[in-house]
Amino acid sequence: MTRRRRRTGKPSNTSAKSPPRSHAYRQLKHPFEPQRVFSDDAIDRIHHKALRVLKELGIKMLHPEARRIFKSAGATVNEASQMVFIGSDIIDAALQSAPKSFRLRAASASREQTYETGSMLFTAGSGCPNAHDFERGRRPGSLRDFEETITLQQSFDVIHLLGPSAEPQDIAPNVRHYEIIRAQLKLADKPMFVYARGRGQVQESFELIQLALNIDNTEFTNGVWATTVINTNSPRQLDIPMAEGIIDFARAGQLAVITPFCLSGAMAPITVSGALILQHAEALAGIALSQLANAGAPVSYGGFASNVDMKSGAPAFGTPEHIKLSIGSGQLARYIGMPWRSAAGSASNTPDMQSGTENNMGLWAALQANATLTVHAAGWLEGGLCFGYEKFINDIEAVQTIAELCNPLPEDEDSFGWSALQDVEPGGHFFATDHTMQRYKDAFYTPLIADLSNHGSWVESGAKTSSERATAKWKAVLAAFEPPAHSATAMEKIAPYIEQGIANGGVAQTD
Amino acid sequence: MTRRRRRTGKPSNTSAKSPPRSHAYRQLKHPFEPQRVFSDDAIDRIHHKALRVLKELGIKMLHPEARRIFKSAGATVNEASQMVFIGSDIIDAALQSAPKSFRLRAASASREQTYETGSMLFTAGSGCPNAHDFERGRRPGSLRDFEETITLQQSFDVIHLLGPSAEPQDIAPNVRHYEIIRAQLKLADKPMFVYARGRGQVQESFELIQLALNIDNTEFTNGVWATTVINTNSPRQLDIPMAEGIIDFARAGQLAVITPFCLSGAMAPITVSGALILQHAEALAGIALSQLANAGAPVSYGGFASNVDMKSGAPAFGTPEHIKLSIGSGQLARYIGMPWRSAAGSASNTPDMQSGTENNMGLWAALQANATLTVHAAGWLEGGLCFGYEKFINDIEAVQTIAELCNPLPEDEDSFGWSALQDVEPGGHFFATDHTMQRYKDAFYTPLIADLSNHGSWVESGAKTSSERATAKWKAVLAAFEPPAHSATAMEKIAPYIEQGIANGGVAQTD
Repeated sequence: MTRRRRRTGKPSNTSAKSPPRSHAYRQLKHPFEPQRVFSDDAIDRIHHKALRVLKELGIKMLHPEARRIFKSAGATVNEASQMVFIGSDIIDAALQSAPKSFRLRAASASREQTYETGSMLFTAGSGCPNAHDFERGRRPGSLRDFEETITLQQSFDVIHLLGPSAEPQDIAPNVRHYEIIRAQLKLADKPMFVYARGRGQVQESFELIQLALNIDNTEFTNGVWATTVINTNSPRQLDIPMAEGIIDFARAGQLAVITPFCLSGAMAPITVSGALILQHAEALAGIALSQLANAGAPVSYGGFASNVDMKSGAPAFGTPEHIKLSIGSGQLARYIGMPWRSAAGSASNTPDMQSGTENNMGLWAALQANATLTVHAAGWLEGGLCFGYEKFINDIEAVQTIAELCNPLPEDEDSFGWSALQDVEPGGHFFATDHTMQRYKDAFYTPLIADLSNHGSWVESGAKTSSERATAKWKAVLAAFEPPAHSATAMEKIAPYIEQGIANGGVAQTD
Repeated sequence: MTRRRRRTGKPSNTSAKSPPRSHAYRQLKHPFEPQRVFSDDAIDRIHHKALRVLKELGIKMLHPEARRIFKSAGATVNEASQMVFIGSDIIDAALQSAPKSFRLRAASASREQTYETGSMLFTAGSGCPNAHDFERGRRPGSLRDFEETITLQQSFDVIHLLGPSAEPQDIAPNVRHYEIIRAQLKLADKPMFVYARGRGQVQESFELIQLALNIDNTEFTNGVWATTVINTNSPRQLDIPMAEGIIDFARAGQLAVITPFCLSGAMAPITVSGALILQHAEALAGIALSQLANAGAPVSYGGFASNVDMKSGAPAFGTPEHIKLSIGSGQLARYIGMPWRSAAGSASNTPDMQSGTENNMGLWAALQANATLTVHAAGWLEGGLCFGYEKFINDIEAVQTIAELCNPLPEDEDSFGWSALQDVEPGGHFFATDHTMQRYKDAFYTPLIADLSNHGSWVESGAKTSSERATAKWKAVLAAFEPPAHSATAMEKIAPYIEQGIANGGVAQTD
């Protein structure tokens, strides 16, 4: 079909030493219009069905304080059953007071982000108990893995918010929060993540950030210095640490991303519309709790909905249903006027084509849905049970490709290249035209891991898959890493606090 | 981050024996609005720059008959330089007479397609000189490979038009067209592909189709029974077999898909706008030749534009520039009101994550661009130098996932699942609800190759990548294959014709 099938030769007039195009993807705005999977009428009906869920069916809230807060606001609370029935007046007020745009602060000003509809932000695959790479194999996550994955996140501009990629299971739970905060402050200068694992750990994490970055409590409370993700226990349940997290983050002016994890067919109805009604109800309940705890506190709508395989019950990602659920979630977020978080992901056990296709489908779904934040954008394996280093590198290529779409194309006369079209004879080539020479250094995206060499050269280089090549890549990234400017000072400032905390036995996590 | 990380158990109320969801993707319509990378004003300017290219710079046409046709229509022709300068009146008339919708006929009526704006059609990776699978390795394409790849194409409904995936290099060029037609008629009942490799071979191919399907010349000429792809020799050149192909397909009422292969930075300007001006000019020239040869003949606008790596000159696919060029091509096709062909593709040498990401990006670009036909949607490796069997299977998963997006979501009350939401207690599951039980058999897409099992089961099954698993899959597809109903009769009908043709020494290809 393609008659010009030969690979073109090396262009004689360009230098192999020209600097690659910059991969600075720090401030991204969605380049495309959001798409729809439901009519506007259906979205309106889904919203109102969610309001009925909240009012008529209710949400079970295990946290007494959460129930008290809702009761004070006029909700009907059954203390025996722990059920909270939330009227639409409470939801309406919450949607009024929730801010639609806020700044995510960071150790370096250049890393700060505006969290609002239209922004396009990514985090790495997060929340994984295990880590995997081709050199060391699969293992339970350790502090070393945690630090390495923070280093990887810091090294790619297209990862905008830090996330806990690999759980440091070798650190005792009661002191783990110290190391999770320390590693982020030591190795990165991007907006930070704090686990909502109980009031004590959250408070200490906030204090550590203030200490390290030399900000007082007022400045801290007036800006978003920490973000957490709140998962509801679908269906219709909010457990103790999650409710407490919503309350504590709201009171401290920090960001809670409310994220029901609705697996259609299992913890949510088997239809896309039914799963979205549940997700929407649970997200609205979380947003309401945030705003009742502190009206005007930063909070994000969120959803991570996909389907299970109905034969095995296993969660699936990157499926048609995942895509439709993401696009529908985007419609609902726009309906209520809030920025929102989506997610990519992969069920594959290894960085293969399946894992790439699953993740790419999720990334494109988030793009179609104009998700403000796409979590798990790089490195997730096993449905989140494992963070893969080689998977991360390969996924970053996809995320960077999407980030490049945010650069608008020039429309000036010179870019149209009339002179080049005029200069090149029929059947000739454009390598040597002035138009090319002026632009060749940064005309195109420079691949991170893609190998464009021909088959012979590829075989000579060892016939490695892109995942096999990625081992050398992440090792080189780790080897070349330099900590951010504030690192040493920050470490000095927090060391005594952590030393004292450990001496005191740390703080228990809330289950 | 995700606190509910366990894989859910097997649902007790669903049967592992329930029939999988049907994968009948025969008639697809684009589900999403097309996107834009240029302002409408820039598209207008690109179109008019392309008209200037045609009128002022001209196209070199190596085929004397093509020059005569243009001269008769009033174009300025320089016989010494073989340059043809085409006025916009000729282009305008061609865009007027070119049909905007036509039916692709096929041996089975259920395989026929409407080629028009809004349709979503796919072909397999095509035009590859080599073939590869994990069992037999990489080899020059043979008739066996050609037949196997036609069988694979026939076996997946999401491949709508046949294409020559692997070139049968073990068949002499002068008789190869017999085998290319014979294999398609023997093994498939979808719209057929005919190479434009000279008048003699084209004419014989058309006669074979008529013989096999028992249609006379009038019926043949009144319907599109054969499609070819016409690549221009960018920049600004149309060679002899390609021009002859346009003329002959137009006169016979068959479809020529005009496809400049504009690699930005090499055979086309280094900017997206510049490359599109060249592509658009060349496509318009081809469309004009078609309409001058036979006004009203079926013809498709087309483009396959990507960029080269400016360090090595190697073609790249699935890049940000590829995506932007596709979306821009879609804007131009809509500007002139024509259906159009795009392409996915991969530069990778093996079915790895790189190859998946490259292809997925191209598929999504075509979706964003509302491409009527996406060529090379499954199986391309090495920038088209190799057709990969395992790559094909894995790519089909991605194409099927996209095809699923064409199924509109139900918006009726029952699908919303209020009863299920009401029935399931907080923290419970939806497996056993009536709403689930009524739908579980075909609620979700059934994966072709994705393995959703957990890490332990996956290791027990041999820890295979999705590409390694795909070997068994394509072998099973080939083993289970049954030829379509018309096959035996068609073979009988064409056997004497081919026997005689071979005895006569076949027909030379035109270079």
